[in-house]
Amino acid sequence: MYIKRTDLALEARELWQESAQRTTRLSGVKATKTKQEGYPVTRVDILDNRGEEALGKPQGSYLTIDLTSFWQRKTDFFERAVRAVGSQLKGLLPAEGPVLIIGLGNAAMTPDAVGPLAADSVLITRHLIAAMPRHFAGFRPVAVFRTGVLGTTGVESAEAVRGLAEEIKPALVIAIDALASRRVGRVCTTIQLSDTGIIPGSGVGNHRAALNRETLGVPVFAIGVPTVVDAATLAADLLEESGVENVRPESLQKEGQGLMVTPRDIDQQVRDLSKVIGYGINWALQDLEIEEINALLS
Amino acid sequence: MYIKRTDLALEARELWQESAQRTTRLSGVKATKTKQEGYPVTRVDILDNRGEEALGKPQGSYLTIDLTSFWQRKTDFFERAVRAVGSQLKGLLPAEGPVLIIGLGNAAMTPDAVGPLAADSVLITRHLIAAMPRHFAGFRPVAVFRTGVLGTTGVESAEAVRGLAEEIKPALVIAIDALASRRVGRVCTTIQLSDTGIIPGSGVGNHRAALNRETLGVPVFAIGVPTVVDAATLAADLLEESGVENVRPESLQKEGQGLMVTPRDIDQQVRDLSKVIGYGINWALQDLEIEEINALLS
Amino acid sequence: MYIKRTDLALEARELWQESAQRTTRLSGVKATKTKQEGYPVTRVDILDNRGEEALGKPQGSYLTIDLTSFWQRKTDFFERAVRAVGSQLKGLLPAEGPVLIIGLGNAAMTPDAVGPLAADSVLITRHLIAAMPRHFAGFRPVAVFRTGVLGTTGVESAEAVRGLAEEIKPALVIAIDALASRRVGRVCTTIQLSDTGIIPGSGVGNHRAALNRETLGVPVFAIGVPTVVDAATLAADLLEESGVENVRPESLQKEGQGLMVTPRDIDQQVRDLSKVIGYGINWALQDLEIEEINALLS
Amino acid sequence: MYIKRTDLALEARELWQESAQRTTRLSGVKATKTKQEGYPVTRVDILDNRGEEALGKPQGSYLTIDLTSFWQRKTDFFERAVRAVGSQLKGLLPAEGPVLIIGLGNAAMTPDAVGPLAADSVLITRHLIAAMPRHFAGFRPVAVFRTGVLGTTGVESAEAVRGLAEEIKPALVIAIDALASRRVGRVCTTIQLSDTGIIPGSGVGNHRAALNRETLGVPVFAIGVPTVVDAATLAADLLEESGVENVRPESLQKEGQGLMVTPRDIDQQVRDLSKVIGYGINWALQDLEIEEINALLS
Repeated sequence: MYIKRTDLALEARELWQESAQRTTRLSGVKATKTKQEGYPVTRVDILDNRGEEALGKPQGSYLTIDLTSFWQRKTDFFERAVRAVGSQLKGLLPAEGPVLIIGLGNAAMTPDAVGPLAADSVLITRHLIAAMPRHFAGFRPVAVFRTGVLGTTGVESAEAVRGLAEEIKPALVIAIDALASRRVGRVCTTIQLSDTGIIPGSGVGNHRAALNRETLGVPVFAIGVPTVVDAATLAADLLEESGVENVRPESLQKEGQGLMVTPRDIDQQVRDLSKVIGYGINWALQDLEIEEINALLS
Repeated sequence: MYIKRTDLALEARELWQESAQRTTRLSGVKATKTKQEGYPVTRVDILDNRGEEALGKPQGSYLTIDLTSFWQRKTDFFERAVRAVGSQLKGLLPAEGPVLIIGLGNAAMTPDAVGPLAADSVLITRHLIAAMPRHFAGFRPVAVFRTGVLGTTGVESAEAVRGLAEEIKPALVIAIDALASRRVGRVCTTIQLSDTGIIPGSGVGNHRAALNRETLGVPVFAIGVPTVVDAATLAADLLEESGVENVRPESLQKEGQGLMVTPRDIDQQVRDLSKVIGYGINWALQDLEIEEINALLS
Repeated sequence: MYIKRTDLALEARELWQESAQRTTRLSGVKATKTKQEGYPVTRVDILDNRGEEALGKPQGSYLTIDLTSFWQRKTDFFERAVRAVGSQLKGLLPAEGPVLIIGLGNAAMTPDAVGPLAADSVLITRHLIAAMPRHFAGFRPVAVFRTGVLGTTGVESAEAVRGLAEEIKPALVIAIDALASRRVGRVCTTIQLSDTGIIPGSGVGNHRAALNRETLGVPVFAIGVPTVVDAATLAADLLEESGVENVRPESLQKEGQGLMVTPRDIDQQVRDLSKVIGYGINWALQDLEIEEINALLS
Repeated sequence: MYIKRTDLALEARELWQESAQRTTRLSGVKATKTKQEGYPVTRVDILDNRGEEALGKPQGSYLTIDLTSFWQRKTDFFERAVRAVGSQLKGLLPAEGPVLIIGLGNAAMTPDAVGPLAADSVLITRHLIAAMPRHFAGFRPVAVFRTGVLGTTGVESAEAVRGLAEEIKPALVIAIDALASRRVGRVCTTIQLSDTGIIPGSGVGNHRAALNRETLGVPVFAIGVPTVVDAATLAADLLEESGVENVRPESLQKEGQGLMVTPRDIDQQVRDLSKVIGYGINWALQDLEIEEINALLS
C-alpha cells in the first residue's frame, strides 16, 4: 500500500486518524498541546508497541513547535523562537556532561542544509575548556561534527559518528537534520525535537543507518525542520481533497519519482530556522542570553 | 482564467492544442522536428500576431533540444550535447561581432543558478584581445555579465545590462536563465534557444523588464533550461489526468502559492547542463573543439 | 629608483619625510590628528600640484582611521568603529541624492575581498523606494555593484561602473577596495577614506583605469583597507632598519615578484573590517543606529 | 637559537649544510636525485637517530617532486605531473587494502586549503563497492575525511581520524596538508611525499597531535604542498644574503609575528596543485588513466 511520507510524529498521528478503516481509538499514543513564548507546541508521546506500530516511529517523546507566526516577524520573534526551542530542548536533555552535536545533510543543497547551517551557530567549547579550563569553567563542553554526504566521504554518517563518539565520549548526542513533511503548510514553519534518535537523510529520501542509543551507546536527541514535501504525497492529498476516489498511488509515485516540493525562498527560510536551532541549543546548554551568544559567535 | 505556467514555446503550443474549445487549426505558428547529434530538436516559429496571441510569446524562433537521453550517459553524451546546442545556436546568431553574455539569476539558489553557472564555462576573450590583439587574432570578443538579483543590487537586470551594453557596444547579446516548464518530464532535460530576447526571472516567478532588441538596441538571443514546475500547474495536470472535472484552479493556486517542484538531485543536473550551455556557446562563437575549450578553461 | 609601494596617503607622506635628500619642508600638504570614538584619525590634505607630486596622489582629503585597538575587543569596539567610520565619512559626503556603492575586487580571494564583503553589509534601498515610495520615504536610495575581476568578465571595472552610472544616475559613488600598505603594522588596522576616487586593484597589484569624477561625472569617494604588504617593500624596510647600506632594490623586487605578506588570520580580519565599513556606510547614509541596521540586514 | 621554519626534508637538509659550525659530513641521511616525466625528484632518506636529530624529522623517506616547470604549461604538463606524483606515491604504498584519505586544513582559507581541495578530486569508492560489489570489483576501497579546523569542531584532527580509523579499519592512511617552506621559490612548485605520517597544521603554524603509525595503528603516508613562507624566515634569509651579520632573529620574529608570505595568485595555484594530488592518488590506487579519472569524476 502507498504510504504518505512524513517525518513528523504529529503528521503520522493525523494520517492514522484520517485513515477510514480505523474507527477505534489510537492507543499507546498521547498528545498534548501547550504554548511557549507565543508559539504553539504539540507533544506526542509514543508509549508502547501499539503506538510504535500505529505511527511507524520508535517510542519516545516528539515535540513540535509551530513557528508559522515567526514569519510575520512580530516583536522579538527571533528571541522568542530561540527561547521556545531552547527551553523545550532543555526539558528533554540530561542536565550535565559533554555534548556532541551532529550536523547531518548536504551543505551544498539548501533543502538538505539545515544540519550544517545550524552547526555553524553552535558555540563550540570543548577545545577551549581543554586548553583553558579556568577561563571556561562556566561552559559545558560542546563539539560539532558535520557528516557530509555519503557520495563525498564513502562513509555512512552513522559509522563516522560512532567512531567519533567512541573517541571523545560525549554524555549525549544531538543530531540536526532536514525532514520531509506531508503538508506544505508545515514546511519551514515547524521544528520537531525528540529523544528517540534519528535516521539521517529522511528529508531528502535516502534512508540510512540510525543514530540512536542502540548504535551510539549514549542518548541521542534529534532536531529537525521539514523543508520538503514529497511530490507524490502532495498530489495524493490534492486528489483526495478534490473528491477523486480510487487514487492509484503507484502512478503518482512514478510521476513524482525523485521530485520534491519546496518553497521558492527556501534559502532564506532554511538559513533563519537553522540559526534559531543553533541559538536554541546554546540557550539550552550554556545558560546564555541571546545577546551573549551574539557576542561569543561574532 | 487559470493559466498553466510555462516558459517553453513547445509547451505553450501543446497547451493551446489541449484546450477543448479550440477545434480550429493553430495559424501563425509552424513546428518542425529534426534530430541533431542524436538529440531530438523541435523548432517552433511564431510567425505573426495570431501566433503571438495564441501562444502568449513574441514572434520569432524557438528551438527546443531534448536532452532526456543525456542522463543515460551513453557514448559521447556530453560532446554530442555541446555540439547540438552549439550548432543550433550558431544557426541563429549573426556570424560576426563582439558578444555580451548575460548570466541571469541567483548563483546562491540552485534552481535559479543556470545563468551564472553557464557563464563560468564561457571563454572570456574581450580583455585578452584588447591587450594582445595579435595573439588572440582568431578569437571573437566575448564579455560576461552576471546580473545578480534585485535584492542584492537594487538595480533591475535590464537597467544594468542596458548600461553595460551602451558602454561596450556588443553586436549581440546572449542571455541565459532558468525557466519554468509545465511538465516534470522536461525539467533538466530540455534546452530552449530563441532569437526573441527574454524576460529575466521567469523560472522562479519574478517577472522583470525584458532584455530584447527594443530595450537593448541589439539582437538578444536567449538560452534557457527549465529547472522547476509550478506546484499549482503540476497539481492541475495531475487532477485532469485523473479525470477530475471542474478543477477549481484558484484553490490549487492558493495551495501551491510560492511552491516549486524540482528534482532531488537538482544540483548535479543544473551543474551539468550549465556546462553544456557554456561549452555550446564557445563552440558556436569560437570554432573550437571541445578538447581545446577544456584546455583554455583549465 | 625603487619606489616603496603604498596606497595610504599617510605612508606616502612618511616616505617623503624619510627620504634623506629632502631637508626642505613638504609644501602643499597638510596633516592633522584627532580622535573619534577612541580611535586616532589622521587627516592628510593634498592642497596643490606640489603636494600631488611629492606624495604621488591626487589632490583631496585622505582620512586614516587607526583601528589597532579594535582587535583588543574592548567595550563597544565594533559600535565605536562603525560610528567613527560613519561620522568621518558623513563629513566628506554630499548630504543628499542617490548613492551607488561599488565593491571592487575578487570575492574568492580573501586579501582582495574587502569590496564585495563590505557590499554585503550595505542596506540596499533603491528598488524598495521605487516599489514602495511611501513605506521607504525616510531612506536614501542606495544601489550596489560588485565589479568582479577582469578575468571573469572581460570588462574593466571602470567601464562597467561608467555604464551603470550613466543608466541609474547616482549623485555620488562610493568605491570600496583592498589596499597595499608599506608597514605590516597597518595591515587590517587601518581604514582610509578619501574624496579623490580610486584606481581599482591597487591592493593586489593590477593597476586599472580610475574611478573618479573625471571618468564617472559625479564625485567618487573611496574606502580602503590595507590587507597586504608588498614582499619587496617589507624586505627593503627590514634591510634598512638593520643598517644595510646600498640595498639593491632590483634584486629584492625580483625575489619578491608576485609575493605578498599577509596575516595568517586574514579571513577573520577582512570579514570583520568589511562589516565595519558596510555598517559605517549605512550609519552615514541612512541615519540609523547599529541595532536598526542589524534588524534590517537580518 | 632561531630555527628557520620548513616542513620540507629537502630544505632541512640544506639548512643543516649551510650552518657554519658543521664542517663534518651529515651522517644518517641519504639523498638521491632522479627525474620522472620530466620533473626532477629528490629523495631524502633519514636512516637513523643521527639523521633524525640533524634534520628534526622522523626516520623515513621523503620524496620531493619539483613542479617548477609545471607553470610553463608545456605539452601534457598536467598529465605528466599526475603520473609523476602517482608513480612516486605508488612506490611508497602497500599494494593492497582499503585506504582512508585525510584532507587536513581549512577549506575557507586558500593557503590552508590543499587538503580539502585535493580530497574533492579523489575517487571515493568504499560505499559503491559495499553496495555493488560486482560492479566495482576492480576498484580499491577509498574513503575520505575532511577534518575541518579545531575552531569549528572542538575536536583535534588526530582524535577525529583515530575514531574514524578505528571504525572503518583502513589498511593505510594518506594525509594531505599545506606546508611551509623556507624558500619562496618552492612555494606552489613542490610536492612532498613521505611515509612518516604528518603533524597537521604545520603549514599555517598551529602544531597539533601527529597522525602516524603510533597514533593510528596503520601506516600513514603524507602528501604536502608548501603554500607559504614564514615572514621571519624570509627576512632572515634576505638579510644573510645581503651580508648582514649578527641578525637578531628575535626582532625579526616579532616583526613577522603571525605573518605569512604567499603568491598573489595563490588561489589558482593551490587549486591546480590540489587537482594534481587528487588525480595522482587515483592513478596510484586505482590503475586508471587520466581520461578515465575525468569521466568518473564528472
